[in-house]
Amino acid sequence: MNQYVEHSGCGAEADLISVDQALSLILEKVQSLDTETVALSKALNRFLADDVYSSINLPMFSQSAVDGYAIVATGHISAQTQFELVGELRAGQSTDICLTEGQAVRIFTGAAIPQNTTTVARQEIVQSIENKILIRQDLAIHIDIRDAGEEVASGQQLAQHGQQLSIGAIAALSMAGVKVVKVYRYPRIAVVITGDEVASQASDLTTGQIFDANAPLIQAWFEARQQKVSIFHVADHEDALTELFHQLKDEYDLIISTGGVSVGDYDLIRPVALKVGFEQIFWKIKQKPGKPMLFAQYRNLNSHHCCLLGLPGNPAAVYVGMQIYTSTLLNALQNQRQMPNWFSGKMTHTLKPDARERFLRMSAQFDQGELQLQSLSKQQSHMLTNLMQANCLVRVPANESIQIGQCLTGIFI
Amino acid sequence: MNQYVEHSGCGAEADLISVDQALSLILEKVQSLDTETVALSKALNRFLADDVYSSINLPMFSQSAVDGYAIVATGHISAQTQFELVGELRAGQSTDICLTEGQAVRIFTGAAIPQNTTTVARQEIVQSIENKILIRQDLAIHIDIRDAGEEVASGQQLAQHGQQLSIGAIAALSMAGVKVVKVYRYPRIAVVITGDEVASQASDLTTGQIFDANAPLIQAWFEARQQKVSIFHVADHEDALTELFHQLKDEYDLIISTGGVSVGDYDLIRPVALKVGFEQIFWKIKQKPGKPMLFAQYRNLNSHHCCLLGLPGNPAAVYVGMQIYTSTLLNALQNQRQMPNWFSGKMTHTLKPDARERFLRMSAQFDQGELQLQSLSKQQSHMLTNLMQANCLVRVPANESIQIGQCLTGIFI
Repeated sequence: MNQYVEHSGCGAEADLISVDQALSLILEKVQSLDTETVALSKALNRFLADDVYSSINLPMFSQSAVDGYAIVATGHISAQTQFELVGELRAGQSTDICLTEGQAVRIFTGAAIPQNTTTVARQEIVQSIENKILIRQDLAIHIDIRDAGEEVASGQQLAQHGQQLSIGAIAALSMAGVKVVKVYRYPRIAVVITGDEVASQASDLTTGQIFDANAPLIQAWFEARQQKVSIFHVADHEDALTELFHQLKDEYDLIISTGGVSVGDYDLIRPVALKVGFEQIFWKIKQKPGKPMLFAQYRNLNSHHCCLLGLPGNPAAVYVGMQIYTSTLLNALQNQRQMPNWFSGKMTHTLKPDARERFLRMSAQFDQGELQLQSLSKQQSHMLTNLMQANCLVRVPANESIQIGQCLTGIFI
Repeated sequence: MNQYVEHSGCGAEADLISVDQALSLILEKVQSLDTETVALSKALNRFLADDVYSSINLPMFSQSAVDGYAIVATGHISAQTQFELVGELRAGQSTDICLTEGQAVRIFTGAAIPQNTTTVARQEIVQSIENKILIRQDLAIHIDIRDAGEEVASGQQLAQHGQQLSIGAIAALSMAGVKVVKVYRYPRIAVVITGDEVASQASDLTTGQIFDANAPLIQAWFEARQQKVSIFHVADHEDALTELFHQLKDEYDLIISTGGVSVGDYDLIRPVALKVGFEQIFWKIKQKPGKPMLFAQYRNLNSHHCCLLGLPGNPAAVYVGMQIYTSTLLNALQNQRQMPNWFSGKMTHTLKPDARERFLRMSAQFDQGELQLQSLSKQQSHMLTNLMQANCLVRVPANESIQIGQCLTGIFI
C-alpha cells in the first residue's frame, strides 16, 4: 500500500454485459460434448443426439379396446342379433382363430382381434347364453378396435434430435421397443468452493467464519437432476488454487467455482484461471445478485475443452448462478442452445428501479389463468431464508419502475 | 359360460366417485409414516416433521457488505476527510482490532467489522495513500454493514413442520448451521407389473404381446424424485399374485400395481387384495384415462399399514395415476394432506363434452402473464407418444363443452 491506489468499483459499470448478452455468449461459445449410446433406462433428462424412428407399428397389432366380443358380421349389426361363441382371447395370447360370419369370440382389452373381425361389442351391450351371445343394441362396423399403427406407423419419427428425455418420453420410447438411445454425454463437473471464511464443521467455526451454504446448495441442485459432482474446498491461496485448476482443467468438462471472483485483492479465481490457460468469455454481468460472474474456457492440445463458471461467493448469487447460468450452460454442453424457458407473470405490486437487472425471489400463484407475482423481503445477496417461501426467480429490468399488472419473466424454482 | 351373464360396464356409471372425491379419500384415510432424523444433505424433497429454529444469528456477526474500509468517525463523514489505515481484515479472519476515532482498516466483503466501526466506505470512493486513506464523497454512518442477526435472530423460526426441503431450503438451513433434520420417513415402495401381454425383451415378443411401457415409466418417475423402488413382474395367475401380495404387504408401505384392476374375468388385483386382507377405500373413478383405479389399505397385527394403489394397465392411465394419485398419496404418507398444486390456464380452443372428467395431455405456454392451453392429438389410454410434446396434464370437467378462454386446472409434468 505504498502507492496511490484507485480501486475498481462494485456498482453498475459501463463495461458490464447484460443478462441476455451473458446467456447468449454461453450458448454461442460452448462446444457440445461428444455423444454416447446408453440404455433408455439410464437416459432420463438426457438430450437425444439422433432422431428416433419407430421400428414397429403402435399398436403392434389390431386389438380390442374393451372387454367384450370380437364379431364377424357383414355390416351393421341390428339389436337382438345372435352370434355363435367359439372361443376366448386374453391379452398376450397369440391366436390362429379365424372367424367366419356369424361367429364371435370373448375378448379382453388389448388382446389381438382374430382375422376377419368386423367389429367388437363391449360386454355391457351383450348377453351371453351358453354358446351364444345376443347383441342388445345396434352396433356399427369397426367399433372399439385399436388398429395396428393407428398411433405410430413403423418407420415414423418418434422423437427428434435435441429432445430431452422426460419421464413420458422414456415411457413412449419403451412402448415402441426402443432399448438404447444416442445422447449427448453429460459433463464431468468439478465444484470448487473457495473462501477462508467457510467452515464445514461447527467445531471449526471461529470468529469471522460462517457456515457454508454453497456446497450444500450446489450438491442438492445436482442431486435434484440425478447427477453427482466432485466438490473441492480450497483456501484463498494462489498456489493451492493454481495447482487445483491445473489438475481439474484436463479431467473435467466444467468447473463451477464459488467466491473469489470479484475485484478484491484476494479474488484469485480470475487471475489464476487466466494464468493456467483459460480464456475469458465474459466477466461481470449487470445483474443483482451475482455481478462479478466469470465465464472462461480452456482447450488443451487434445482438443479437450473445459468451461469455468466462476460464481461469486454470496449464496444468493450462487443460487441465481445455478438456476439461470449453470442450467443454460449444461444444456449448451449437451448441444441445446436455448435460452431458459421463461414464464411471464403479472406483478401484484410496484417495485422501485435499480441500476442493475435483478433476479428477485418471489411467490407466484395462478389466479384464473394468470400468474400473479409477489416479491418477498430479504433479497440481499447474503440472504437465503426467503427461499423457504419463494417458488420462482423473476427478472426485473434495470432502471425501470415496475407497475402493478406489469408483465415480468422468470423461472419456477 | 353356461349361465346367463350380465357384464358390468366400462363407461360412466352411477357408483363412480369423482377425481376430487378420490383425492380427498386418499388424504383422509392414509396414515402418516413415522419420523426419522437424517443428515440435511440427505433430506432433499423430504418433509419436515418439526419446526426448525435458528440457533445462531444470521449474519452471525456484523460484517462488511463490500470490499472497502471500516472506519470510526463521530458521525457523518464529509468528502476529503482522511483516516489513518491501521490494518487489514479478510473474510474468515478473526480480529481483536479495536478502532478508535480517526482510524480505518482495509476490509473485504464478509469480513467481521472491528469493534467501534461506525461505517464502511466502499473502495470506489476511497483513495489510499501510504498509511492514510481519503474519503472522496460524503458518507453517512452505518453504510454497507450487514448487522448480526438482521436476516434471522437466534431463536427465530427458520422452517415449519410440514415444509418440503427444496434446494433453496437445504441451502438456507445449511447457512444457519443446521446439520440434521427430523423428517417423515419415505415409504418403502413395491411396484407390481401384471399382464401376460407384457414382454420385457424383444426376443420374448410373440404375437399378441407388447413392449412394457409401465415399468420404465414408473422407474423414471421415481428416479426423477431420487427414489428407488422394487419392481416385480407377475403373470395373471391368482396363486402367483396371492403369494406376492402376501409377501409384500408386510414389507412395504405402498404397493403400486399396474393392470388387472378392471372388471374382466382375469382382473385379479382387487379380488386377491381383498382376499389377503386389504380393505377397499375406493374403486373406479369417473375419469378418463384410468377409470378402474383401486385404492385399498391393509393393517397387520403390529399396526403396520400398507397402501395399495391399483392402476389400470393402459400406459396413459398409469401416467395419470403416477402424476396425480401417486404423488398425492406419497405426500399423504409423509403427512402432507394437500390437494395437488393445480395451475389454472386458459383454453385456446373448444373441447367437446365427455361423460367422464378427463386428464388431457396438453402444451401450455405463457403469453403476457397468461397460461395458454392447447390440447394434443392421440389422447387415448393406450397412446403415449404425445408426451413427447406435452408439458402438462389438464383437468377437463365431465359433461361440459369447453369454450375458448375458459379456465381449466392442471399440473406441469
